[in-house]
Amino acid sequence: MSAFIAVDIGGTHMRAASYPKVGRDPIKIKRISTRAPNATPLEQLISLINSIWPNDQEVSAIGVAAPGPINPFEGIIYTAPNIPGWQDMRLVKELEREFKVPVFLGNDANLAAMGEWCFGAGQGHHHLIYMTISTGIGTGIIVNDKMLLGSRGLAAELGHVTVMSGGPVCGCGKTGHLEAVASGTAIARWTKEQLQQGVPSKILSEDDLTTEKIAEAARKGDDLAISAFNRAGQFIGQAVADFLHIFNPSIVIIGGGVSSSDDLIMDPIRATLIERVISSHYLENLTVTIADLGDEVGLLGALVLARQSCQQKPDASQPAPVEYAL
Amino acid sequence: MSAFIAVDIGGTHMRAASYPKVGRDPIKIKRISTRAPNATPLEQLISLINSIWPNDQEVSAIGVAAPGPINPFEGIIYTAPNIPGWQDMRLVKELEREFKVPVFLGNDANLAAMGEWCFGAGQGHHHLIYMTISTGIGTGIIVNDKMLLGSRGLAAELGHVTVMSGGPVCGCGKTGHLEAVASGTAIARWTKEQLQQGVPSKILSEDDLTTEKIAEAARKGDDLAISAFNRAGQFIGQAVADFLHIFNPSIVIIGGGVSSSDDLIMDPIRATLIERVISSHYLENLTVTIADLGDEVGLLGALVLARQSCQQKPDASQPAPVEYAL
Repeated sequence: MSAFIAVDIGGTHMRAASYPKVGRDPIKIKRISTRAPNATPLEQLISLINSIWPNDQEVSAIGVAAPGPINPFEGIIYTAPNIPGWQDMRLVKELEREFKVPVFLGNDANLAAMGEWCFGAGQGHHHLIYMTISTGIGTGIIVNDKMLLGSRGLAAELGHVTVMSGGPVCGCGKTGHLEAVASGTAIARWTKEQLQQGVPSKILSEDDLTTEKIAEAARKGDDLAISAFNRAGQFIGQAVADFLHIFNPSIVIIGGGVSSSDDLIMDPIRATLIERVISSHYLENLTVTIADLGDEVGLLGALVLARQSCQQKPDASQPAPVEYAL
Repeated sequence: MSAFIAVDIGGTHMRAASYPKVGRDPIKIKRISTRAPNATPLEQLISLINSIWPNDQEVSAIGVAAPGPINPFEGIIYTAPNIPGWQDMRLVKELEREFKVPVFLGNDANLAAMGEWCFGAGQGHHHLIYMTISTGIGTGIIVNDKMLLGSRGLAAELGHVTVMSGGPVCGCGKTGHLEAVASGTAIARWTKEQLQQGVPSKILSEDDLTTEKIAEAARKGDDLAISAFNRAGQFIGQAVADFLHIFNPSIVIIGGGVSSSDDLIMDPIRATLIERVISSHYLENLTVTIADLGDEVGLLGALVLARQSCQQKPDASQPAPVEYAL
């Protein structure tokens, strides 16, 4: 039997796991810090992969999920936020030299979409939008059972569409992007600004605002906290309505930390969708739901990439994918 | 030898042509009015197709480009603007019954994208965005040499993304869409509003404003006319920057009546693109250009659809399409 290895690289932690040929139960799984006093991040990564290498099975391939802009075709990480020294890092070449097996690289949000599509909320769907809302907003798109990559592998950056001309500065440096008004960071910043401007709240104070605290206050009926989620949800709903017109998917999956606030964010998203679609045809048979897989999603997406196959049975409730035979 | 028939249906005119198995030179081609005193639009269409039916060749298939929302998989036109009685019109069924050959139906802007991809400015590209700017804004997308259709065939409506929250009402009834601020209609309406508000122009008057007249005034140095194109171009550029982040295409093709104003619209589009992309990687090897095919584009797209194949040689300057083998 042959095994597959999946790796999920983040700015603070790296995870890796080995898996059998079929299924999603790991043989070995481990998480370590990305930074260490006496090793480079690449040395940390190699040591992590060695630690979960299966004892008695051959490894067929390694799939790697990495943050930041990457070139999936050439296996290059252009820049990795919070990982010192990883500029134009030829990660696939480095790992293939070390481990002598094929290595595949994918953007973490793209692979999370694949994880949800193969093992999570998106099973059986052929046209899927996945959006993770936490510090930033990352997205992945499935079109006719294929990941949307574009000519250079830079597609599916739906957090960087303009939803508010002249709006706040985004993590990318441009203004008014969805990420800049509706990420967890943006929700906390807007709430803080409102408090500074004298908007009253019986629960929230300016110090140490997090989306968790704002969600807790909203559950207790705090108007400012409720407004913060409504505002973000309306921007997300407006953008998702646009994405329905662009992709006409059968499912939209919301993941990331902010999705754990559940109806606080999902209700205004759904309401705005209904208000903003140009035709009810876009909502027929459309599912808008929260992600299934939690923290494991990056690893499971990297596993699908390593296997180069999903292996799940198609969902009989979904029509087979149709495309012009071109 | 077998022939193929292409049809392009508009609110005022219908065109049809028969073509040989290979190439783009028609055997017979004809244009008639969509409305006639003594015939329904469907009867007009059937008579038109009969008139260009080749005398001495078998017909293999018919491809039809139709405006408005359609269901390409089931061959239904949901609504056709300006064609009375065409609600939920099962056009494929009607034409297959009449002509006993396979009939394929596509949205006119989607098929225009295919026309430009196969025979026009987009030859050799694998990831393409086509945008026609005239009365409205229609779009078609090619992803990895396939037309983007979505789960129900309603994808690629890029004219209906929000570029100005609370902006003017769009043809679709919603507000602030790209079509509502940057179509030919929108350019003329905005110019008229400016004149009504007392903005001076030595050339333009409120009566009978068209984009052609505004373009002519702009060429003579009229500030208001130049502003009208700059404003529309900036909105289009902002939206196209978003589309680059979404699709990462290698070419963006601008067609339709407004594109004949050339640099008046293309210069502000290009300038805004440079200003708004989140990374210069999106502009590497990107072509932003005007459409090649003019009025013939709908017919040629319908021809590609009828043939279910492009038959053009790949452009050696473009890398082969790459996708994860999933």
